[in-house]
Amino acid sequence: MDEGNFEVCCGILFPQKKSELIITELEYESSKKSNEKINIFNNKKKYEKLIIEYLSSSKFIGLNFNNLLYRDYINFKKLLPNSKFINISEEINKLRIIKDNNEIKKIRNACNIVDKVMAKIPDILYKEITENQLAAEINFLMQKMGAKKPAFTTISSFGQNSAEPHYSHGNVKLKKGDFILCDFGANFMRYNSDITRTFVFGEPNDKQRSMHKTIVNAQNIAFNELMAEVKAKDIHKKVFSFIEQSKFKSLFIHSTGHSIGLNVHDVGAGLSSDSEILLKENMIFTIEPGIYLPKFGGVRIEDDIIIKKDGYELLTNANRNLITI
Amino acid sequence: MDEGNFEVCCGILFPQKKSELIITELEYESSKKSNEKINIFNNKKKYEKLIIEYLSSSKFIGLNFNNLLYRDYINFKKLLPNSKFINISEEINKLRIIKDNNEIKKIRNACNIVDKVMAKIPDILYKEITENQLAAEINFLMQKMGAKKPAFTTISSFGQNSAEPHYSHGNVKLKKGDFILCDFGANFMRYNSDITRTFVFGEPNDKQRSMHKTIVNAQNIAFNELMAEVKAKDIHKKVFSFIEQSKFKSLFIHSTGHSIGLNVHDVGAGLSSDSEILLKENMIFTIEPGIYLPKFGGVRIEDDIIIKKDGYELLTNANRNLITI
Repeated sequence: MDEGNFEVCCGILFPQKKSELIITELEYESSKKSNEKINIFNNKKKYEKLIIEYLSSSKFIGLNFNNLLYRDYINFKKLLPNSKFINISEEINKLRIIKDNNEIKKIRNACNIVDKVMAKIPDILYKEITENQLAAEINFLMQKMGAKKPAFTTISSFGQNSAEPHYSHGNVKLKKGDFILCDFGANFMRYNSDITRTFVFGEPNDKQRSMHKTIVNAQNIAFNELMAEVKAKDIHKKVFSFIEQSKFKSLFIHSTGHSIGLNVHDVGAGLSSDSEILLKENMIFTIEPGIYLPKFGGVRIEDDIIIKKDGYELLTNANRNLITI
Repeated sequence: MDEGNFEVCCGILFPQKKSELIITELEYESSKKSNEKINIFNNKKKYEKLIIEYLSSSKFIGLNFNNLLYRDYINFKKLLPNSKFINISEEINKLRIIKDNNEIKKIRNACNIVDKVMAKIPDILYKEITENQLAAEINFLMQKMGAKKPAFTTISSFGQNSAEPHYSHGNVKLKKGDFILCDFGANFMRYNSDITRTFVFGEPNDKQRSMHKTIVNAQNIAFNELMAEVKAKDIHKKVFSFIEQSKFKSLFIHSTGHSIGLNVHDVGAGLSSDSEILLKENMIFTIEPGIYLPKFGGVRIEDDIIIKKDGYELLTNANRNLITI
């Protein structure tokens, strides 16, 4: 999307159900695998000519506004002055949020990879390993086990760095008593997984144990509610109010989870207080309560689940107990 | 940008030069390192309240249209009905395309990492290593040498896969006579590098030698032209016409290079036939001619350079000769 000048490719689906791709020459060899009709451009003029040729007679054109740069919208308007553009983001999201069997299989694979990597982390850790080194090992293992790449920048944070939910990793060395928060995902055939565990290096103190226990319980509260026809926001509210009533009040500062699929944060849908989502069979979400105590550390446990008619199934299964290293 | 529901943060620069950040609670700990005034939101309502509070009295608001989702533009219009939005993409790009000393230092570091990794590749390769395994090793080495993460999905392609410029890697095993095309970059303190070399496993045949030689020469043609006040498109035209006159006519199917910085394809600027860029001191580009012969293979050589008043300096220096493994 933001890569280069003319690397803007598009797929056009016509009302007759036929579809065509408009593809830069650079992607020609790759796109031949798609079975779609392919039109090639190698400069801006040719791209614009193709857009006009294919679309100028269309009165209504649906676009995914949620994934379209304003720059590109302006360009479409200029090229196609007689067309009316309609936002079809909701329709696309509705299709994407429910996964088909082929998608579920790929996500299961991505989940198996992170389970196996998470199980190896206790063996990787040693005194004075840096966050960077751990992140490098995690990414290497994921790729060795079949991931195309990490699904996102791996989070490997020690000690009080774990109190920053989106910290990634630095030169900090592991020391006795540190929390070790590992949050990573595998990208497998374009589909993603996402898992988090929090360990302690050495014997945990009471506060660490209590934080971890609270999050295990918070996650179980979500698990107990998961099933088709439940409102996503109700699940978040239950988890949130549980933490608010614990001694870690006001430290749960993000949503309970997000849809996962082709994107890590897929179709902008999540288990949050603002969510309008009603859970349906074969939706896949992360469940990831966390608490973050500045200057001390954070605990998050995250798993991927698939919604079933009467419940859910865990797609990630790495040990959820407090592992002390 | 497309991560989650409310992870939309913004920076506001006021005409009095004061600046403020509007940040999700999730990023609070990280954003404290920035020295800017920070405003926190934890849900959509609070975010919208902050936007209205800070901006509703502004008659003109500059936005980076090139990096703004149409969805977010519509939302700004709704929240700020009395403001007029102006596209400041060009102004931002003009600032970003010329690197300051601090940026140059970070990019130099990112370039040193990929040089060191590229030098190790001949030792990593062995018969039947897969493209996936090589990519995993490359990423691991980059991170061990200080990269935060790969700048983009590492390309490690063997044999005829190298004829797809944007192929990444698969389960294909290395065999005698294969081209090995490695294209990767390091992200170091948010700045990127980007390098490509093409090796041959075993003794190259005449066609492979000739393709490689053509690309070495094509790259030198670009190098000879690089200096401040030269038009970017003129450099591309010279490289393009050199290849068109070789026996590999019509196989150079992308631009000669792109600006590199905070993004890998930075500010949408490149050395292409459509480019309006006039080279200036301290612009940083890749120089990456390539030829792609379907069903046979491709050769690309890519280096990062910084424009100087009277020439250029290479930032990547890995061996450019045809290395046979």
